[in-house]
Amino acid sequence: MSNRIGTCISFTLFGESHGAEIGMLADGLPAGIPINEEFIQKQLGRRRPCGAISTARVEADEYRIVSGVFNGYTTGAPLCLLIPNGDTNSKCYEGLTYHPRPGHADYTALVKYGGYSDYRGGGHFSGRLTAALTAMGAIIQCALKAKGIEIGAHISSVGDIKDKSFSPTAEELALAKEGFPVIDKSAGEKMKAYMAEAAAEGDSVGGIIELAVSGMPAGVGEPWFDGVENALARAMFGVPAVKGIEFGAGFGFGALKGSEANDAFTAKQGRVMTKTNNNGGINGGITNGMPLVYRVAIKPTPSIFKPQETLNLRTGEEETLQIQGRHDPAIIHRAVPVTESVSALVLADLLAQQYGRSWLVPDKEGRK
Amino acid sequence: MSNRIGTCISFTLFGESHGAEIGMLADGLPAGIPINEEFIQKQLGRRRPCGAISTARVEADEYRIVSGVFNGYTTGAPLCLLIPNGDTNSKCYEGLTYHPRPGHADYTALVKYGGYSDYRGGGHFSGRLTAALTAMGAIIQCALKAKGIEIGAHISSVGDIKDKSFSPTAEELALAKEGFPVIDKSAGEKMKAYMAEAAAEGDSVGGIIELAVSGMPAGVGEPWFDGVENALARAMFGVPAVKGIEFGAGFGFGALKGSEANDAFTAKQGRVMTKTNNNGGINGGITNGMPLVYRVAIKPTPSIFKPQETLNLRTGEEETLQIQGRHDPAIIHRAVPVTESVSALVLADLLAQQYGRSWLVPDKEGRK
Amino acid sequence: MSNRIGTCISFTLFGESHGAEIGMLADGLPAGIPINEEFIQKQLGRRRPCGAISTARVEADEYRIVSGVFNGYTTGAPLCLLIPNGDTNSKCYEGLTYHPRPGHADYTALVKYGGYSDYRGGGHFSGRLTAALTAMGAIIQCALKAKGIEIGAHISSVGDIKDKSFSPTAEELALAKEGFPVIDKSAGEKMKAYMAEAAAEGDSVGGIIELAVSGMPAGVGEPWFDGVENALARAMFGVPAVKGIEFGAGFGFGALKGSEANDAFTAKQGRVMTKTNNNGGINGGITNGMPLVYRVAIKPTPSIFKPQETLNLRTGEEETLQIQGRHDPAIIHRAVPVTESVSALVLADLLAQQYGRSWLVPDKEGRK
Amino acid sequence: MSNRIGTCISFTLFGESHGAEIGMLADGLPAGIPINEEFIQKQLGRRRPCGAISTARVEADEYRIVSGVFNGYTTGAPLCLLIPNGDTNSKCYEGLTYHPRPGHADYTALVKYGGYSDYRGGGHFSGRLTAALTAMGAIIQCALKAKGIEIGAHISSVGDIKDKSFSPTAEELALAKEGFPVIDKSAGEKMKAYMAEAAAEGDSVGGIIELAVSGMPAGVGEPWFDGVENALARAMFGVPAVKGIEFGAGFGFGALKGSEANDAFTAKQGRVMTKTNNNGGINGGITNGMPLVYRVAIKPTPSIFKPQETLNLRTGEEETLQIQGRHDPAIIHRAVPVTESVSALVLADLLAQQYGRSWLVPDKEGRK
Repeated sequence: MSNRIGTCISFTLFGESHGAEIGMLADGLPAGIPINEEFIQKQLGRRRPCGAISTARVEADEYRIVSGVFNGYTTGAPLCLLIPNGDTNSKCYEGLTYHPRPGHADYTALVKYGGYSDYRGGGHFSGRLTAALTAMGAIIQCALKAKGIEIGAHISSVGDIKDKSFSPTAEELALAKEGFPVIDKSAGEKMKAYMAEAAAEGDSVGGIIELAVSGMPAGVGEPWFDGVENALARAMFGVPAVKGIEFGAGFGFGALKGSEANDAFTAKQGRVMTKTNNNGGINGGITNGMPLVYRVAIKPTPSIFKPQETLNLRTGEEETLQIQGRHDPAIIHRAVPVTESVSALVLADLLAQQYGRSWLVPDKEGRK
Repeated sequence: MSNRIGTCISFTLFGESHGAEIGMLADGLPAGIPINEEFIQKQLGRRRPCGAISTARVEADEYRIVSGVFNGYTTGAPLCLLIPNGDTNSKCYEGLTYHPRPGHADYTALVKYGGYSDYRGGGHFSGRLTAALTAMGAIIQCALKAKGIEIGAHISSVGDIKDKSFSPTAEELALAKEGFPVIDKSAGEKMKAYMAEAAAEGDSVGGIIELAVSGMPAGVGEPWFDGVENALARAMFGVPAVKGIEFGAGFGFGALKGSEANDAFTAKQGRVMTKTNNNGGINGGITNGMPLVYRVAIKPTPSIFKPQETLNLRTGEEETLQIQGRHDPAIIHRAVPVTESVSALVLADLLAQQYGRSWLVPDKEGRK
Repeated sequence: MSNRIGTCISFTLFGESHGAEIGMLADGLPAGIPINEEFIQKQLGRRRPCGAISTARVEADEYRIVSGVFNGYTTGAPLCLLIPNGDTNSKCYEGLTYHPRPGHADYTALVKYGGYSDYRGGGHFSGRLTAALTAMGAIIQCALKAKGIEIGAHISSVGDIKDKSFSPTAEELALAKEGFPVIDKSAGEKMKAYMAEAAAEGDSVGGIIELAVSGMPAGVGEPWFDGVENALARAMFGVPAVKGIEFGAGFGFGALKGSEANDAFTAKQGRVMTKTNNNGGINGGITNGMPLVYRVAIKPTPSIFKPQETLNLRTGEEETLQIQGRHDPAIIHRAVPVTESVSALVLADLLAQQYGRSWLVPDKEGRK
Repeated sequence: MSNRIGTCISFTLFGESHGAEIGMLADGLPAGIPINEEFIQKQLGRRRPCGAISTARVEADEYRIVSGVFNGYTTGAPLCLLIPNGDTNSKCYEGLTYHPRPGHADYTALVKYGGYSDYRGGGHFSGRLTAALTAMGAIIQCALKAKGIEIGAHISSVGDIKDKSFSPTAEELALAKEGFPVIDKSAGEKMKAYMAEAAAEGDSVGGIIELAVSGMPAGVGEPWFDGVENALARAMFGVPAVKGIEFGAGFGFGALKGSEANDAFTAKQGRVMTKTNNNGGINGGITNGMPLVYRVAIKPTPSIFKPQETLNLRTGEEETLQIQGRHDPAIIHRAVPVTESVSALVLADLLAQQYGRSWLVPDKEGRK
């Protein structure tokens, strides 16, 4: 169903950019998961706009959990998390309805919802909703961490500026979470300069995010259509601006031969491993015990201040569009914690499918 | 759920490579869709192994529809399509269980299913099951075609040999369906030579498939997690060997600026269009009326005859594995009709979600 | 999934009796359904406690819609409806955890959720949540009414006091909505006296609710497991205290012969009808154009002031339980609008499955 | 979705009365469940027509499992079970399409499927499909039995002839499975005589089936809409002719007071129990450790040989219908194993939701 992911544990996203509140509803969470408020705030902070490379819209992101938590732990009942919208300025969006912004969902929403949709600030399609996704994902990330599963993400490239690739070591995963989300902080400085330059030109930039998950037990993921790749891909394309996803060698496989691509099995300290990880920790859709590694392509923020060509849908004439409002010249750094959160939600559901929902509860039996 | 895709119309895949029969079950199909047996056979033929670049296993692919069809039309009841397995030779697979083949699901299946899974020929993970997927997709492709929706696919690249890109014109879509699935037939000859060369070396090759869908009405696809990209991605990763998917400019967006990436709106003959199609016909997960364009990365067939390193899971020692049996040095050309079929199943469900199931019935109201 | 009903349009219920807010989230609603605030308030009013036959807990039931509605119409995005909890008095519930109340979910919740569940006022199991169900159902009831579909319910019996049966005529459906929900208002007076008498004794009463739906088009409902009976039954057992459901002659069929039970077909003014309606408007799970008629059994409110026997789960000893707090000696009259709402949610989803989601929008094509 | 039940483990029913094969597809079954062919045959035998009180149609019911089973155990892949149709005589059904049989789904199927449905022998709506349901349920019943969960059913009443009520003891559960499904075999003789008498008159009879499940652990069932009552009710209304379901005291609750209805908690040998079982083993939708007890109402077989009134849908004129073919004067005794099977499928899914799918595997940890 449209705004929902998950089979055993489901998550539904709701809200609009300039509506009263945005939120996410989790159904099927086991009882006994502790709520780590500090980590939720930390992840929301990483997603929040900052400085010259972000929108001027300031959001307090004060989340409330109105159900499903009691005395600091999940109860097993649905968990509804809400974040009020503040600092909205809807005036800039008047008139946009009939002048669809290129690269945005304005036109498709108009066709689909026949003029009833809330067009202010992108409405239900706005990246604003990822704040709720991030907060919910933070709850789940803590639960996964308690089971030894660590999720990390960094900007792999922006324009032709590249960060170091994930091995991934624990240090890399930690480093990517400090400050600007890159491993090679000097590459990060170049990226920021490139973003600021684009901002100065009234333009925006795209990039690629690389993610890694360490500690996933082998045997998770269902065959054919609910494997790890299927489920992560489905969910990740929900993150606004994602236009591609690849696992392990991904599109690079196109130029490889089988003898180069196959990951030979070996054992280290009694644990089955592969010598290379071209498959990104996944065979046949199922985890093989190696770290998951995957990348998502983020298109440039479609909201740019440079004049653009569009159509006046009333007159049928082409017109020049000069976007107003407050926009991000780059959202890729803000998307990093969002992609971590999406990964957490997806993996939690697959783990619950494999081991039962209560596996996610920290004081239950440890890592399998 | 694992082996199923679709919300309003669902499709579940079942069977094993060396089991009695493979099949697919459709639930939610409207009554009144005609069954075009000729097209089903044609698509099965395109998927069937051929010559030096395929396995020597010959499958008659004689499908039977045992329910849900009466007098040549769907009845609205679940449609169960079966294909018996023939020409199986399970002896080659004895002993494989504890010598997992690199790049295959042998090891992950063993962990997940604890030794109960049918390991012969890859069992439930085998590409063999895509025959059923192809046949079911052919039924749906005909229904979509009657509504003006045409799906095509070609090999975009193998190694460093590239085909022409899809525009896509009707001619290109048709050309890709004739013989070897490329638009530029001379590039196709080079690809075949490259595949045959790899086969001679006991090796295999990967590649990239490009798909296009013309005639999709604007406004199809649900927001956030059931958009066209989400649903196609989820389903496409079910096709064995798919390790990446991108829409429109895809990973290329990483090096673009917003002013380059955005698709300006315009109108042609009263119809809203975009001047470029970097977004691959999709904005905010919803079709915008332009052709859908997307690509999937196919990893090299993991079954190669070259000796490989693996682990003897009983002894914990590394061993050299020499695979026996009949295998494809390349499956990308056979995967082409499979990816078309998967696309058809996904789009049919999204169209049914938007317009109701009966929209798919030919004699109902025409294209919206 | 647990707290959710619906395939094409889904509704998820959340919240706890003494939590911050309760609510319901609708996903898949079409854009363009008007929000009739007056009717929502009217239905909430019918559900609100009143006088000697209800709890002393007073709820303002001030609902807020925080997403999915813009300018008074649904937008097509998920609609989240919230109702803050007020006038809660949790002190009375201290200690209940280990002295499970007979007939309540205290013990089963403890086993299932291992002590993490919010036990105050019944927590997530509380009838309090039906306020959100009622409000959401009111929105949908209005949409159905605009398509000619009218849902009504009345108390069929309490103890051995019986109301007149539904024919149902439009007058009966309207009469049941005025004041105490019975058709024969003198029977209603007797019921109220019987309830007040039980209240005076510290006891409670059960009863039977009869529902009817007029105007349902023929052909709605899916075969086998998503028919009208299946879907209504599944949802209706979600209403606290419901322990049985029957359609048409229901359990009375057990003593009938086929020649008495079958409903002969006839035609009136060119419309196919049946001469009797023993099947309650449903054949093979699918509507036949006759009014739907069904009844649900409501068990007596388990919270009674009379001393009861229970177990002290810490000591393993039997103890006498004297319930404190504010409770309803009868909830059947308050359950009447709840069962109407549940019916509306279920039928809206089935209609959307049959005709597409947008059929529910008033200004689209009229009744089929 | 229409023809499917189950969240973690799903079961989809397909086929038509006079089609090639009927079957059921299970998705999500864990690997390692043994297939007990003898018990499958036994259950199919109990469902098979017998003597004067059944149809003359003889079915061999030779089932085949074409996927998901290897070396006698489930593999974790989807299990497809097929039963070929034999001894069909479709001639009797010619012309029925436009003379809908009272009480049958002929008319509703015609409206819904617009003339495309397979009308022969009731097509997809036929009780014939319950053979596949029975066989699949038998597989699951064995798995449940290995975990100490026993499902039994008997005819509670036919006309005004009543069997003894279930306590249920192990003896009663066993007795009901021997021969005619009643506990009091003399009552059974009266029932058979009553059925034979109706058959002689060209008429048919209805009745009530009572079910019991012993050994269910406490804490199973999800709140609100996926509780034991919700899920059993939804599935049970899929069995043709079921028109009502009630749990524990059921509709009898309508005349009880809370002090009579509540089940007091006590303990026996350290196990929490209730002194009475008016709630049928379920509180708040969740099992409380007591036996589940519930009843379903079965309407008289609508196919009777007595002349009936119907409408000629072509002419709009009333006509007299004289049904031909082979029909059951009573199906209640044949429905008994079907309702057991449906119960098994539903409970297996709820157990998997609570404990994980692999809980159902016998050699895994014992009863919780």
